[in-house]
Amino acid sequence: MDDTAETRQTALAYVESLEHRDWPRLTTLLAEDVVYEMPQTRERIHGRPAFLEFNSNYPGDWHLRVRRVLADGRAAALWLDVRVGAGEQEACAWLDLDNHSRITRITDYWPEPYEPPPGRDHLVERW
Amino acid sequence: MDDTAETRQTALAYVESLEHRDWPRLTTLLAEDVVYEMPQTRERIHGRPAFLEFNSNYPGDWHLRVRRVLADGRAAALWLDVRVGAGEQEACAWLDLDNHSRITRITDYWPEPYEPPPGRDHLVERW
Repeated sequence: MDDTAETRQTALAYVESLEHRDWPRLTTLLAEDVVYEMPQTRERIHGRPAFLEFNSNYPGDWHLRVRRVLADGRAAALWLDVRVGAGEQEACAWLDLDNHSRITRITDYWPEPYEPPPGRDHLVERW
Repeated sequence: MDDTAETRQTALAYVESLEHRDWPRLTTLLAEDVVYEMPQTRERIHGRPAFLEFNSNYPGDWHLRVRRVLADGRAAALWLDVRVGAGEQEACAWLDLDNHSRITRITDYWPEPYEPPPGRDHLVERW
């Protein structure tokens, strides 16, 4: 299996282990010094223990579904549908892997909706 | 050149042609019935002419820089640093290409910053 194929497998396993709250499996996918960043809130988490605690304590009945996974060498991009109770959100996650296919960096974008600026109504349809 | 290499080249050319306001070059990269979506504002633009008008009329002195491009078959993910005047933003764009390497679908996430929820301060550092 080449780097890209390994990365794709790890990226999918990452989402599956989160969705199933399979913390032992998630642990095996992460480098010990993994760094997790959320640019919207400018928050950074250092290390596997803190990242596992963050996820296992994350409130709400959240569920993740992969809409798209792109793997390219030792990097992956995940396009996720996220459901928390009745709420739905989309997320973009960027993963970096080391040479042992362990995830060393995760950057999670959690975009929130907002209203468009005026002046382009004639070009767009809304949904 | 295989699909992935072609896709990478097209994704980079897409950003370059936007950055340089090179509308003739951008036109050659796009399928005639390209669909452009912005999930934050639930806006959709149909077709090359409307998409070109949207971009050529977009207000402000905006600039795009590729932080990361991932190509995988006929799909690409772009992680962009966007500068408008003194303001900076990051964007995630997903591209789909047809068999002629023309872009058929663009999904642009323009995440805005917000404050984190309380209760996880002990796990994170802020930047």
